[in-house]
Amino acid sequence: MWSVNDQALVIPLWADLIAVGLGGIQGALFAGGFRGDRRLDLLGVAIIGIVMGMGGGLIRDLLLGVPPATLQSNWYLLTATGAALIGMLLAGVFHRLNAVIVGLDAVVIGLFGAFGTSKALIVGLPIVPAIFVGVCAAVGGGILRDVIMGLPVAIMHVGSLYAVAAGAGCVVLAGANALGAPLVAASIAAIAVTTVIRLLAVIFDISLPEQRALHRRKVAVETAAIPIVKL
Amino acid sequence: MWSVNDQALVIPLWADLIAVGLGGIQGALFAGGFRGDRRLDLLGVAIIGIVMGMGGGLIRDLLLGVPPATLQSNWYLLTATGAALIGMLLAGVFHRLNAVIVGLDAVVIGLFGAFGTSKALIVGLPIVPAIFVGVCAAVGGGILRDVIMGLPVAIMHVGSLYAVAAGAGCVVLAGANALGAPLVAASIAAIAVTTVIRLLAVIFDISLPEQRALHRRKVAVETAAIPIVKL
Amino acid sequence: MWSVNDQALVIPLWADLIAVGLGGIQGALFAGGFRGDRRLDLLGVAIIGIVMGMGGGLIRDLLLGVPPATLQSNWYLLTATGAALIGMLLAGVFHRLNAVIVGLDAVVIGLFGAFGTSKALIVGLPIVPAIFVGVCAAVGGGILRDVIMGLPVAIMHVGSLYAVAAGAGCVVLAGANALGAPLVAASIAAIAVTTVIRLLAVIFDISLPEQRALHRRKVAVETAAIPIVKL
Repeated sequence: MWSVNDQALVIPLWADLIAVGLGGIQGALFAGGFRGDRRLDLLGVAIIGIVMGMGGGLIRDLLLGVPPATLQSNWYLLTATGAALIGMLLAGVFHRLNAVIVGLDAVVIGLFGAFGTSKALIVGLPIVPAIFVGVCAAVGGGILRDVIMGLPVAIMHVGSLYAVAAGAGCVVLAGANALGAPLVAASIAAIAVTTVIRLLAVIFDISLPEQRALHRRKVAVETAAIPIVKL
Repeated sequence: MWSVNDQALVIPLWADLIAVGLGGIQGALFAGGFRGDRRLDLLGVAIIGIVMGMGGGLIRDLLLGVPPATLQSNWYLLTATGAALIGMLLAGVFHRLNAVIVGLDAVVIGLFGAFGTSKALIVGLPIVPAIFVGVCAAVGGGILRDVIMGLPVAIMHVGSLYAVAAGAGCVVLAGANALGAPLVAASIAAIAVTTVIRLLAVIFDISLPEQRALHRRKVAVETAAIPIVKL
Repeated sequence: MWSVNDQALVIPLWADLIAVGLGGIQGALFAGGFRGDRRLDLLGVAIIGIVMGMGGGLIRDLLLGVPPATLQSNWYLLTATGAALIGMLLAGVFHRLNAVIVGLDAVVIGLFGAFGTSKALIVGLPIVPAIFVGVCAAVGGGILRDVIMGLPVAIMHVGSLYAVAAGAGCVVLAGANALGAPLVAASIAAIAVTTVIRLLAVIFDISLPEQRALHRRKVAVETAAIPIVKL
C-alpha cells in the first residue's frame, strides 16, 4: 500500500498545492466566462475550481489504485476553493494578464504530468502505463470539467498539442529515469519540456494537421462565449 | 484496509438499504418522466434506479480508496432494481403523493451525506475532505444520472440549495464529532439539518441569488418533460 | 489485496490482449466514421481505441477496488493503440468485412463480460454484484466512449439486447460456477451464450419492445454519420 509519507519525499506538499491552486484559478477564470443563461453562481465557480485543481490528481490516484492523496489533507480543498474565489474576485486583473495565464497553464500541465508519471513509477508501474497516467493527470481535470459542464471534451476536438505537450514531458521523465537519472532532476526536465512545447504551440498556433479547421472554429466560439486566452 | 464489518457497526445494513431503495424509487420516477423519443424501456429504468440508489455510495468509496461497499452484498443491487420496478409500477400513486416524494428525497440526501462523512472520518480522513466526500455521496448519484442521460448536470445550474443542504449536514456531523459527540448522534443531527434546509428551500423556493433566473427556466422545462416534484 | 499473478492463472494475458486489441480496432472504426467538423485526428482515434479496448477493464477494476490490471503491463496500451492505428489504416478493408466486425464485436462483449464476472467471483464478490461487474465491464468501454465524445449513451436508448446479451452470459457463468463448474469451462459457455444472443439480435433485429422506434431512428442517424455495422 502506498503511504502518503513516501510520496511527500518525492512531491513536496507546497509544489502539489501550487499546481492545485493554479488549477483552481484557471477553473474560476473559465467558469467566469459563462454569460447569460449559463452563468454560474459562487458554488458553481468553486466546484469548477475544485475539479480543475484536484481532478487530475484524483484520476491519477484512481488509475494507480491508491487512496486519493488530495483527500488525505485539509490543504488541497482549502487551496482549490480559495484559489477559485481569488480567481473570481480578480478576474478582471487576470484577464489583462493573459500572457501570464497561458504561461501558468503550460506550467500546470507540466506539473500534473510530471507528478503523475513520477508517482506511477514509484508505485511500480511499467514505463508505458506510467506515461499514460501522467498524461491523464495533466488533461484529466479539463476532461472532468467539460463532462460536468456538458461541453464537448476539448482534448478530443481541439488538441493544440495540449496532450502531446504533456505526453512529451512524461516520455522525457520516464526515459531519463529509466536511464538512471534521479526522479527530481527528470521531473524538472519534464516540466520544462512540456511548458516549452505548450508555449511554442500557442505562440505559433501549431496544431496537428486535421485539427486546424476545428481549431479555427473553436476560437470563434470561444471569442463569443469564453474569455479568450491568447498570448 | 477498511473492513466491511467495521462499517456495519456504524451504518446498519437496513439503513443503507433504505437509502438505496429510496434512491431507486426516485430514479424510476425520474426515468418514467421521459416521453416520446427519449422514453426509456424497462432496462433503462432499472439502470437509472441503480445509478440513483447506488451511485452516491460508489463515488464515496472510490474517493476513499476502499472497495465499494454496495458490491459486497447481494442486497444493494436487488434493493435498487426492485425499488426501481416498484417505482415504475406505482408511478401514478407516487405522483399524487408529491409531498411525500420531496420529503423522502430530502431525507435521502441527508442519509447519503451523513453516511459519506461518517465513513470518511472512520477511514481517517481529515475534517475538510470528510465533508467533501459526504457532499459528493449526497449529490453524486444525480450527477452520474445526468451524465449518463446526456442532460445538463443539474447541480451546476440549478442548485436550489441542494448541495448546500447536504454540505450543512456534513459540516454539522464533522463539527459535532470533532467536539466529541458520538458518530451516531452526530449523524442523526446531520440528517435532520440537511432535511430541514432542503425542505425549507423547496417550500419557500429559496435559491442562491444568481440561480433564480435559471431556476425559473428549469421549472418550465421540467413542467414540460419531467414529472413535477413540488410540495 | 488482489495479486496480478493470481489473475494470470485465470485470464491468460493473450486472451486479455485479444479482447483489448479487438476493442481498439472497433474504437478506430467508430472514430473513423466521423466526418466534417467532428472528424478526429490521429490522437483522437488512438484515444477512442484506448477507451474502447481498456475502458471495460478499468471500470471493472475500479468497481472491484483493485489496481487496474491493464496498467500493470506495457502490453495493454501498446496493443490498444497499435490496434487503433491498424484499424484506421485498414478501415476500408474492415468495412467490406462487416459480418466479421459484428461477429468480433459479439465475441468481445462476451470476453469482457466473462472476464469481469470471473475476476469479481475470484476477488470474493457475491453472485449478484459479480454479474453486475461483468455487465459493466462489457458495456463500460462504450459508455465511456459516448461520454467523452459527447454522444447520447447508446446503451440507454438503443439496447438491441446489447446489455441483455452480456448479462445472460454473466448469469450463465456465475450460475454454473455456483453449481460447481470450473471457472474456465463456465467462462467459455458464458462467452458462447453472449455471442449467440448478440448475433441473433443483430440478424433478426430483435430489441426490447419500447426500443424499436428509437432503434429505427438511430439506424437512420448512423447511416448518415457513422460507418454502418450490419450483417
